[in-house]
Amino acid sequence: MSRMACKLSYDGTAFAGYQVQPGKRTVQSEVEKALQEIHKGARVPVVASGRTDAGVHACGQVLHFDTELAIAPERWVSALNTHLPDDIVVTNAAIVEPDFHARYGAQAKEYRYYIQCGPFENVFRRHFAVHIKQALDVPAMQTAAKHLLGTHDFSAFCAANTTVADKVRTITHVAVQPSEEGLLISIRGTGFLYNMVRIIVGTLLEIGTGKRVAAEMKVILAGKSRNLAGKTAPAHGLCLYEVDYGQPLFVNETPGQVSMN
Amino acid sequence: MSRMACKLSYDGTAFAGYQVQPGKRTVQSEVEKALQEIHKGARVPVVASGRTDAGVHACGQVLHFDTELAIAPERWVSALNTHLPDDIVVTNAAIVEPDFHARYGAQAKEYRYYIQCGPFENVFRRHFAVHIKQALDVPAMQTAAKHLLGTHDFSAFCAANTTVADKVRTITHVAVQPSEEGLLISIRGTGFLYNMVRIIVGTLLEIGTGKRVAAEMKVILAGKSRNLAGKTAPAHGLCLYEVDYGQPLFVNETPGQVSMN
Repeated sequence: MSRMACKLSYDGTAFAGYQVQPGKRTVQSEVEKALQEIHKGARVPVVASGRTDAGVHACGQVLHFDTELAIAPERWVSALNTHLPDDIVVTNAAIVEPDFHARYGAQAKEYRYYIQCGPFENVFRRHFAVHIKQALDVPAMQTAAKHLLGTHDFSAFCAANTTVADKVRTITHVAVQPSEEGLLISIRGTGFLYNMVRIIVGTLLEIGTGKRVAAEMKVILAGKSRNLAGKTAPAHGLCLYEVDYGQPLFVNETPGQVSMN
Repeated sequence: MSRMACKLSYDGTAFAGYQVQPGKRTVQSEVEKALQEIHKGARVPVVASGRTDAGVHACGQVLHFDTELAIAPERWVSALNTHLPDDIVVTNAAIVEPDFHARYGAQAKEYRYYIQCGPFENVFRRHFAVHIKQALDVPAMQTAAKHLLGTHDFSAFCAANTTVADKVRTITHVAVQPSEEGLLISIRGTGFLYNMVRIIVGTLLEIGTGKRVAAEMKVILAGKSRNLAGKTAPAHGLCLYEVDYGQPLFVNETPGQVSMN
């Protein structure tokens, strides 16, 4: 029996999210269906680094599963891609230690949020970036984003119906960078609460469009109430970009091998 | 009565091509439906610079129509976008001379063909670029492409079932450029035969993958037979990038305003 880790990218548009849900098309169910075909009908459960919501994309999702098949990692990649639908692509596979765990072993994650600015939507990016007509005040967004760095209680940036008790998380990197078509917001941290990135982006967009001033970010964070923060930004601008396990899992791995840019 | 010209971009994935076909979803039928709604039920026929096939995209398609509505050009843009589905976006509108004709007035067109290279398909670009696993011999493709420049009988690069008599066309620009994810092939000319760009690209790909040598391009052109050229490249890598009317049609126009890159 070996434990395999795989890195995958997916276009979240046509999925009801990552996690299995009865009667719905999800990333997990498609991957498990592919594995079941490869294992001649035997069920092979997979464990991912975490869920992504409906419409959210990934280019660096990592999952693990156990198998008795003796297939070389590079052949696992092609075997899986042969059995997967064309909106999921496995880019890497490796044999890992038997105690590797895709969820509990994740030390940090990076999410990227793509925004296109301008009078018209770029029709080719409409599923992969959120379109904002107004010009954005990027320096104000950058100033506000800096308040998020460090260890804080992120209750204000967590969906109100979340039951998790400890809402303290650490953000190690946040950047609001102008891109060719608009803006790229990247956020790296040791863990994220439900909808945390999308609420942060929604709040930054309200600052960028002048509805709020940059200094409010600090007040919102200190207030620890979801009501204080901005709207949850749409799912389709968000991408799980990278999961960090403290060591490279795959041979020849380059971050962002498959980019949404 | 004024004659309006519009520039539009569309994601060709979900269309059975540009031209109206009974019972099928086409770009023209969606635009005419939007115009009919704006004109309170009256039919408004549109004339485009030319057709595009099923799966082919556009970021610079131009069309004209006649209207009795006195709406300012910038308001035409938003009125049309309000009534159009989200895979068609009008980016420009202008009142033109009554004798302007989107098809007969077109002096040149530029098509772009997008290729992604590498071991895995970029899932986010799968509808907008053709994926080739093998490394391509770009210098050979560039050498071959140069043979296309100028005025030639392009019979070898025209779908065999075409009835058009005169197959002489002029290519004024052709470039095979490495891009971040692969290759961009751009071809500009005074006119194109049916499937011409896709057969040229298919032939260039056979040269790039070493199935043919660059010098064959000249032989194929001289042979004037469709059988001599390569396979027709897939539709989804192709984009009608720009139509040139010898003068700017729209205010604030920048070529490639909406880019597939």
